[in-house]
Amino acid sequence: MQEQMHKLLDEVLAGADEEEIISIKQLLNGVKRKQKHANESIIGGIFAMDKCSEDGNFTINIPITPVTHNSLNIVHGGVTATLVDTAMGTLANMMLPEGYGAVTTNLNVHYLAPGIGEELTASATVIHKGSKTMVVDGKVMDSKGKVVATSTGSFFIIKKY
Amino acid sequence: MQEQMHKLLDEVLAGADEEEIISIKQLLNGVKRKQKHANESIIGGIFAMDKCSEDGNFTINIPITPVTHNSLNIVHGGVTATLVDTAMGTLANMMLPEGYGAVTTNLNVHYLAPGIGEELTASATVIHKGSKTMVVDGKVMDSKGKVVATSTGSFFIIKKY
Amino acid sequence: MQEQMHKLLDEVLAGADEEEIISIKQLLNGVKRKQKHANESIIGGIFAMDKCSEDGNFTINIPITPVTHNSLNIVHGGVTATLVDTAMGTLANMMLPEGYGAVTTNLNVHYLAPGIGEELTASATVIHKGSKTMVVDGKVMDSKGKVVATSTGSFFIIKKY
Amino acid sequence: MQEQMHKLLDEVLAGADEEEIISIKQLLNGVKRKQKHANESIIGGIFAMDKCSEDGNFTINIPITPVTHNSLNIVHGGVTATLVDTAMGTLANMMLPEGYGAVTTNLNVHYLAPGIGEELTASATVIHKGSKTMVVDGKVMDSKGKVVATSTGSFFIIKKY
Repeated sequence: MQEQMHKLLDEVLAGADEEEIISIKQLLNGVKRKQKHANESIIGGIFAMDKCSEDGNFTINIPITPVTHNSLNIVHGGVTATLVDTAMGTLANMMLPEGYGAVTTNLNVHYLAPGIGEELTASATVIHKGSKTMVVDGKVMDSKGKVVATSTGSFFIIKKY
Repeated sequence: MQEQMHKLLDEVLAGADEEEIISIKQLLNGVKRKQKHANESIIGGIFAMDKCSEDGNFTINIPITPVTHNSLNIVHGGVTATLVDTAMGTLANMMLPEGYGAVTTNLNVHYLAPGIGEELTASATVIHKGSKTMVVDGKVMDSKGKVVATSTGSFFIIKKY
Repeated sequence: MQEQMHKLLDEVLAGADEEEIISIKQLLNGVKRKQKHANESIIGGIFAMDKCSEDGNFTINIPITPVTHNSLNIVHGGVTATLVDTAMGTLANMMLPEGYGAVTTNLNVHYLAPGIGEELTASATVIHKGSKTMVVDGKVMDSKGKVVATSTGSFFIIKKY
Repeated sequence: MQEQMHKLLDEVLAGADEEEIISIKQLLNGVKRKQKHANESIIGGIFAMDKCSEDGNFTINIPITPVTHNSLNIVHGGVTATLVDTAMGTLANMMLPEGYGAVTTNLNVHYLAPGIGEELTASATVIHKGSKTMVVDGKVMDSKGKVVATSTGSFFIIKKY
């Protein structure tokens, strides 16, 4: 298996331009991030999501790199959606007692400006916490503080088994 | 550089469980897919998006694997959003004449069932095509035909430079 | 009281242009509609909502009149939202057993064309029916069959007391 | 015509319960409000919308009455949608230079709590103002300051003729 993987890596490196080399490195490091529990999923790892919770605010950062780009070299709308959904969902889960989880039932994203620059930061705020449902507000900003996207998420509260 | 990459691969493989090995393979193959123009972006490649356009219908498939999972081992809501946004956006762009592009201004996703099984298929249908804006409907189904998510996307039509 | 009301009517009629006279008539008839149980609320009555359920399809019609207009003399976006929310909500409630009700948790409306012509017709289709939540699709068309708005509604299923 | 209207009023009053009498009064006064330019449309008048702009904040109030009720005697979701759409749309139009107008392209409303109490107040905040599109945030609160609904609206900027 090990040998087969190195052969695959060689094949990919052979045809790789600079952006692809950066991507390969970020992807491999992404799996490493999951192994080291810096992220809970491969998705979180490969986008290099850094979570930060201070002063009652909850944010997630990702660097803007070839991994996050669409074919026009701006951040893929799906990546922005993934980022803000993760920020809102993580915050929703943080609000719940042990044994309960929040699952997204609705995600609504308004894209306001292209995702460009060094990194994107998503922040989340709970705007409604009922016994069965939650509604969370999310905002994505670029490194200069410009709002790239605003979002709302609806969550359904479930009892985990 | 090559040597450094192989060293990184070895480090990641050293601590990898079965799911992570599957992921590493899919990620490296994802970059390869982009090199071979099977996908236009790293994102499209690592999720192994297969586009299919026949009989007036447009669909995109992705396999459900550890790469698409969240920490609960079901498809990450952000991946479903990325999939359906890509299906709707690609269709929107296909409807436009040379020199014009469609950018997502609003993405709304209702999550109806957990993404489980072998693969997810997103289909898209144009429901409004104006001179300045388009609205597209999207649906994501699992391998058994169960609807996992429904979505609408608003697009703004721009002139490319 | 009766006398006071006739005095109020006289005052309003004194300054009324043709559109306002049409409106007064529709508003008074709207209350009458509720009294005769043609509608269950004043809102339904004053917009003269006609519900129709045949061949598995559920629709609601309203005439386009000065009552439904905004200041630009096209149908007020809120009226279109009210119409499609009523169609989706009524259908959701029709799907439930005795003693249960569906309350809207999310309403998303895409406005595609101005509401003009003789009447608007909203139709609704259930796209997901779970034990706790429902998602319904709604569409609003003008008299010529042009789609004026598309919509999705999320509903939470509650036990009535 | 005048006679016919008084006859209609008598018919409606004959079968009216207390709530319907309150409604008839509010509806007739609503037309009067439009005549006196307190509101720009019949819709605004019959819901007795009071606009208020101070200290950079923009709000609209409506009293909760039988006119705003659904068949369950809480505020009809469509009324809440109409209220917040009007607040967001009015603010959007206030931000534009002479000769330009903003039309709603997307309205998304999360309903958080039943609309009960004395009145509802909608406030709006611009979160994005581009050259072609605007995105506005809206919030609806009851008399006790409880958030009843949150909303976002997308607007397309048009040149008026």
